[in-house]
Amino acid sequence: MFAQTPEQKLKDMGIELYPPTKAAGNYLKAVQTGNLLFLAGHVSVRTDGSRITGKLGVDFTVDQGYEAARATAISLLSTLKAELGDLSRVKRIVKITGFVNSAPDFIDHPSVLNGCSDLLVALLGDRGKHARSAVGMAALPSNCAVEIEMIVEIE
Amino acid sequence: MFAQTPEQKLKDMGIELYPPTKAAGNYLKAVQTGNLLFLAGHVSVRTDGSRITGKLGVDFTVDQGYEAARATAISLLSTLKAELGDLSRVKRIVKITGFVNSAPDFIDHPSVLNGCSDLLVALLGDRGKHARSAVGMAALPSNCAVEIEMIVEIE
Amino acid sequence: MFAQTPEQKLKDMGIELYPPTKAAGNYLKAVQTGNLLFLAGHVSVRTDGSRITGKLGVDFTVDQGYEAARATAISLLSTLKAELGDLSRVKRIVKITGFVNSAPDFIDHPSVLNGCSDLLVALLGDRGKHARSAVGMAALPSNCAVEIEMIVEIE
Repeated sequence: MFAQTPEQKLKDMGIELYPPTKAAGNYLKAVQTGNLLFLAGHVSVRTDGSRITGKLGVDFTVDQGYEAARATAISLLSTLKAELGDLSRVKRIVKITGFVNSAPDFIDHPSVLNGCSDLLVALLGDRGKHARSAVGMAALPSNCAVEIEMIVEIE
Repeated sequence: MFAQTPEQKLKDMGIELYPPTKAAGNYLKAVQTGNLLFLAGHVSVRTDGSRITGKLGVDFTVDQGYEAARATAISLLSTLKAELGDLSRVKRIVKITGFVNSAPDFIDHPSVLNGCSDLLVALLGDRGKHARSAVGMAALPSNCAVEIEMIVEIE
Repeated sequence: MFAQTPEQKLKDMGIELYPPTKAAGNYLKAVQTGNLLFLAGHVSVRTDGSRITGKLGVDFTVDQGYEAARATAISLLSTLKAELGDLSRVKRIVKITGFVNSAPDFIDHPSVLNGCSDLLVALLGDRGKHARSAVGMAALPSNCAVEIEMIVEIE
């Protein structure tokens, strides 16, 4: 299916996945029903597990927000890898919802969320092309910059 | 199934669909998985494509918000028409999530979202009756008044 | 499947369900598609139907928020009971999204949402273990403290 496995492609892109972050409460990072996998909201974290915190329009530029969303995509992919064993089992990224920690006058959520979307599409090609909602939150857990949830069709 | 096609009914209602608005980033306006179609968050736009911007409780009355949500429904239906070819293929509007751009003290999100829900039910009858969440956002892309996403069961 | 039915377990826990709250607009409290049931956003209400209102970080402590989320879980279960007749038909709580009415500096949404998650897991065991997103809203309908939606796999 994939000319190159997503895992090989990640290596080429210089991206290393890591053990999934722990749930911040009494929930699971992912639940499967039928051939759909629902991933919990993942907050923006660095590779070392530390949180990327701040509000867009106050503490963060759009470029910094883009990087936070890209880092969140890597966290989502790390959970996905742990759930599936093999990222080639991704048939389609169906939908992501991107919650952006926003000042009331911040209006460029799409550019922030592209940090996640660009990575998914670069990695998975057509299978990575997803529907998306991008919205601005009053607040997020631990004051994280971004939280993203994802629905994935698997095989 | 429909005594009158949804397209005929739209004509009777004086509503004209238009080519789907373009995605504001690296995502698709809709993705199908099985017999479910996930529509991306659609922001409030006028028929001419210009955005309907402002915050409920500051710039917008509830009535103006209702009109913005109704306009958003027309944008969603325009995407749906482009995806399905034929709106009779809608088996059920399953769920909408309505994100309302809100001042911190705005509390009448349900009345705003009825602008979308009333149109879906008037157009599609029982097939248009959906579950819904209505929530208040700190901010939305381009300062739009409303953003709505939708899950549709198709045949 | 269940050593004890969820209904018996609820009785042991001293929890009484009630007729589902009415929709606050032109929508349904739940819609089924295939074997998935999508529950509408349910706001925090007391057993007597009165709303639990206030913002986390301003009017509400985390503990009060936890209780509001727990009360919302009881409202969700009341709708579920009315839809299914029998809570043993729950195969899995797949996903909840918890919208918390938040001051801009509130950051402990996970502890609030545990009020809902803890009850679902205590009641349904492994079947109650769900994916979750927890986010902070600028405002919610009627100034409710919490709104929660839920996706349930049924049999």
